[in-house]
Amino acid sequence: MTKTDETRAALNELSPDECIRLLGDQSVGRLAVAFPGEPPTVVPVNYLIEGDVIVFRSDLGQKLTRLRQQPVAFELDHIDYVHRTGWSVLVQGVAYEATHFETDHLALHPWAEGEKSHWVRIVPSSITGRRLVLPEWPRSSRGYL
Amino acid sequence: MTKTDETRAALNELSPDECIRLLGDQSVGRLAVAFPGEPPTVVPVNYLIEGDVIVFRSDLGQKLTRLRQQPVAFELDHIDYVHRTGWSVLVQGVAYEATHFETDHLALHPWAEGEKSHWVRIVPSSITGRRLVLPEWPRSSRGYL
Repeated sequence: MTKTDETRAALNELSPDECIRLLGDQSVGRLAVAFPGEPPTVVPVNYLIEGDVIVFRSDLGQKLTRLRQQPVAFELDHIDYVHRTGWSVLVQGVAYEATHFETDHLALHPWAEGEKSHWVRIVPSSITGRRLVLPEWPRSSRGYL
Repeated sequence: MTKTDETRAALNELSPDECIRLLGDQSVGRLAVAFPGEPPTVVPVNYLIEGDVIVFRSDLGQKLTRLRQQPVAFELDHIDYVHRTGWSVLVQGVAYEATHFETDHLALHPWAEGEKSHWVRIVPSSITGRRLVLPEWPRSSRGYL
């Protein structure tokens, strides 16, 4: 489908509360880390959310030492290929290794094999999101199907 | 579903050829950019691939000037929530604004409203990918359904 200007979606900002709700509804997002002078690394991870803190498990080991106190991002999205819309949430913050005290009560099971013995928490400094919203007429027309 | 160690998926590396095939099969990925001292920004974009070069349209405008010659990453994935598997591809490279000569023949239509008059090309320096593969027994058992 080729969209004309009239049928292209508007990009609306999501509130932080809406972003946190979406984070709570999902279970896989993407961790992005960039060290100075290197291109970013982006990898999917399954996660939990506690309040506004993202928790995931990792085999990073040595890399985690580099990650500590490093600004990171966590991205979540849903793409609707049929209507060419969707939403995305971007959490920016600082990652640090969690203590047992912080994670003992959490049931978070890694998908991949490996120890995944390190638990990482991302404490957000910024939570933003955007949603592509179609103009009214295609929405109304769906009501007549 | 809680996976025991026996049922958790192995993480296999994908070849660059397989990664490029997956890039060709999809139409939305995530651009990640990080400027020194800032957390990464990650946003979904719809794209085309030409050879191993990723092309997308943008309203970045002023930001594009900062993006120029900046190491960037482009991430693509597919998550299978039922089997708790999936794959991901990570392209790392340099982004620059494309000329009309480079993009005139491309049919790439933005999803969101706005000019999207800047065409950006990501020339990869690295293409890597990983796939979570379940152990043999659940695959075989599906054959008996």
